Amino acid sequence: MEVFEAIMSRRSVRKFKAEPIPDDFIEKILEAGRWAPTGGNLQHWKFIIVKDPKILDMIRKVSPGYLGATPFAIVVCSDRERAYKIGGKLARDYLCIADCSMAAENMLLAAHALGLGACPVKSFSPVALKEFLEIPNGIEPELIVIIGYSDKKPSRPPRFPLEEITYINKYGEKWLKEK
Amino acid sequence: MEVFEAIMSRRSVRKFKAEPIPDDFIEKILEAGRWAPTGGNLQHWKFIIVKDPKILDMIRKVSPGYLGATPFAIVVCSDRERAYKIGGKLARDYLCIADCSMAAENMLLAAHALGLGACPVKSFSPVALKEFLEIPNGIEPELIVIIGYSDKKPSRPPRFPLEEITYINKYGEKWLKEK
Repeated sequence: MEVFEAIMSRRSVRKFKAEPIPDDFIEKILEAGRWAPTGGNLQHWKFIIVKDPKILDMIRKVSPGYLGATPFAIVVCSDRERAYKIGGKLARDYLCIADCSMAAENMLLAAHALGLGACPVKSFSPVALKEFLEIPNGIEPELIVIIGYSDKKPSRPPRFPLEEITYINKYGEKWLKEK
Repeated sequence: MEVFEAIMSRRSVRKFKAEPIPDDFIEKILEAGRWAPTGGNLQHWKFIIVKDPKILDMIRKVSPGYLGATPFAIVVCSDRERAYKIGGKLARDYLCIADCSMAAENMLLAAHALGLGACPVKSFSPVALKEFLEIPNGIEPELIVIIGYSDKKPSRPPRFPLEEITYINKYGEKWLKEK
């Protein structure tokens, strides 16, 4: 799938079929995440694939944003302790979030290009997730990417038009595209 | 460009040609950013295109991470005040960063697919940037995406192999792909 098409046609999916996802697809999605940029190339991330239906169910119960049942999910974690040691506070408190988010966006695009539906989830209990997945101190679950075959194609959500959100050279100065 | 190819072959570019970028390309890059997902579809972002060479120069002077001279940059800002009003602390302190990062990643992929080079920059003085670009209180510059024609194709940076960063069902449990 062409990259602009993927970006424009990707939707957050919240209804899924139970059908399992082949490991080849999972690998491609993880690879896409792995090639996102990271500040200073620190790559302070760990990806936990969850396929065990019992654990998925436990995660869903503590994640109000996890809508629909998916055959798997990827919990994108950051190594905040390592980030702090190498890059200080900016790395720990900001780049960990920013870099894991870019990795998650790549995963969403990859899933979509493979004909799957996906949704990024932040609304979860990090304490419960850490317990269920035995995540040690210093490692933080940043985002869950839930993935499955879409059961319903979501409609195009409204977006602010570009002219409302884009300025030129200073805040508030409307951008008029040159013809 | 195919989406996996774009994701895998994108590099952070830090040497640029002075050649200007047509507004059609700028619009496509902004569109790509605008279609990133946002928590609750809040879209609490504003994109400031900077094309004025004097302002670009001022920004470079307060941004150690802004390497190379580009004919333009996009300052991805979040409306943290609005985010807080609608979505509370999680939206203001986390989703603003996560969502703007996903938009930035889309912009990086779009720029690459258009044959341009780009780099995300976080290492800048937000205080100075707010002054130069007249960014009001409540709005935060999150990331700068610097963009131009690449003058030097960067080499492939090292990445941790997937088996070192991927676990299954719990932290520390190595994932062995099914054949």
